[in-house]
Amino acid sequence: MKSATAFAPATVANVAVGFDILGFAIESVGDIVTVSITDDPSVRITQILKGLSEPLDGPPLEADRNAATVGLIKLREDLRLDFGFEVVLRKGIALGSGMGGSAASAVGGLVAANSLLEAPLAREDLLKYALLGEQAASGASHPDNIAPCLLGGITLVISTDPFRHVSLPVPQEILAVIAHPRIRVDTRNARSILKANVSLADHVKQSAALGGFISGCFQGDIDLIRQSLDDFLIEPQRAPLVPGFADVKAAALEQGALGASISGSGPALFALVTSEPEAARVRDAMEQAFTANGVADVDFWISPVNPQGARIIDEVS
Amino acid sequence: MKSATAFAPATVANVAVGFDILGFAIESVGDIVTVSITDDPSVRITQILKGLSEPLDGPPLEADRNAATVGLIKLREDLRLDFGFEVVLRKGIALGSGMGGSAASAVGGLVAANSLLEAPLAREDLLKYALLGEQAASGASHPDNIAPCLLGGITLVISTDPFRHVSLPVPQEILAVIAHPRIRVDTRNARSILKANVSLADHVKQSAALGGFISGCFQGDIDLIRQSLDDFLIEPQRAPLVPGFADVKAAALEQGALGASISGSGPALFALVTSEPEAARVRDAMEQAFTANGVADVDFWISPVNPQGARIIDEVS
Repeated sequence: MKSATAFAPATVANVAVGFDILGFAIESVGDIVTVSITDDPSVRITQILKGLSEPLDGPPLEADRNAATVGLIKLREDLRLDFGFEVVLRKGIALGSGMGGSAASAVGGLVAANSLLEAPLAREDLLKYALLGEQAASGASHPDNIAPCLLGGITLVISTDPFRHVSLPVPQEILAVIAHPRIRVDTRNARSILKANVSLADHVKQSAALGGFISGCFQGDIDLIRQSLDDFLIEPQRAPLVPGFADVKAAALEQGALGASISGSGPALFALVTSEPEAARVRDAMEQAFTANGVADVDFWISPVNPQGARIIDEVS
Repeated sequence: MKSATAFAPATVANVAVGFDILGFAIESVGDIVTVSITDDPSVRITQILKGLSEPLDGPPLEADRNAATVGLIKLREDLRLDFGFEVVLRKGIALGSGMGGSAASAVGGLVAANSLLEAPLAREDLLKYALLGEQAASGASHPDNIAPCLLGGITLVISTDPFRHVSLPVPQEILAVIAHPRIRVDTRNARSILKANVSLADHVKQSAALGGFISGCFQGDIDLIRQSLDDFLIEPQRAPLVPGFADVKAAALEQGALGASISGSGPALFALVTSEPEAARVRDAMEQAFTANGVADVDFWISPVNPQGARIIDEVS
């Protein structure tokens, strides 16, 4: 049975300054999706595993409700394929972590399936299908996890239809520290608590921060990135969902992080740093601050920005 | 009497995508400010002329209320100067035009006076004094005219205290068409009509547009600039202040402009284009659309982005 396996990385959305439009992928953690071609002209998801083998409760095994398969159903229809897909999903990204788990499942399934086609689509053309998977899993369709998971880099989404994005240059020394306290935040809830409006004054402040961050990336100006990495709009509203947030953020900044904020809708946090030793110090300080706030179970990753996004890691023909 | 004369250019603030933080200077029109050193240790403004000689009603001849002198008073105090300044202001920019007239007066006075000092301040250090002048004239202190008038280029203001800005690279082919219908808009009123809040959804759209514009400038990507030059927030609220706005904008876009919107708080409009012939076509089309809407008296300028900002044009020692 012809099959392909894709690794689809975890992603940090929003990145403090770009709610719903900015995100980046990391390298060290992600979902792994194996797609096989079947004679049966349908899309099925047969297994969802935690890591390599442990069965996982949570995402549904119905293909029309699972992030990994929803986009595949539409892809099959649009391309009028006369064969089907069978999907095995290995979740490396915890559910409801704020690390782009449903985006990774969606992108992984599509990238794997696409590699099996005689005439594969361009990466950019997979975005709309991946958004369907994200929509099915999270109830809303945002490109800020999907785009970096699919394309890598720090991805600024200008528009989704037609899809237009900018891959911001990543200053070479930048590393991300990701902290995932093992408490679950429901993305739908994290979104529903957001106020429908922002003040014009805060919009102006946030625009300046976004502009500074983007310019800092283009100019390789680490100081400007440091000055700009502030979220005046979303972080204050979501911070209460993460126990100890203020202390953990302060600990990261004290150790020299360029900035720290909530990854997507949380509870995962991210910090950006400029060296391996600094990354280790920031991680340790964040861990201590979490512990002091009664959160003992926290996973950490240190990773450069993933430059390529999802990739094929195995093929069987 | 030792004196210096500065030309301070007109500026387009907001530039559709960056309310209160983005602006650019043009080359063909501005205020001209002559500052002379006086033994009398005070700051006085003795004449305000329209063009080279015609007396102008409008801006006050009191130094503590005129944009050209308010900053000079504070500069004298801060530097403990034992001499004074006498100012003659030639207004090339119409009052209440939306072309940064008070910013130009403020910047012109400061740049001229600064050139007379034994130890002149850096351009960036004049910003806070210029903001005082803008504040006196318009009732609010915004850097989006001051910064490009002082520094040139397409200027993104990240913060005012401390002052931090980015000069965006300007794609070489870009020209601005400025249209000033001779109707006066009171800046205070143009600001007071703005809603205090924007929707989160519109904030996201506007952020994507700002990000696209900045990225387009850095990448020299004219198509991306074209796609991004939209104002979802301010233009819809201020458009009713400019008779025929929708038609004039549509006329500019039809002739190939990358975008067109209100310059600052209006009534001046700007369009960005990519060649001299296109600039002429856009100007003609805008003029016709104004005429069709009963606005017969419109001044036009076609100019590249001014790369240096205010400059000394005459010195007497």
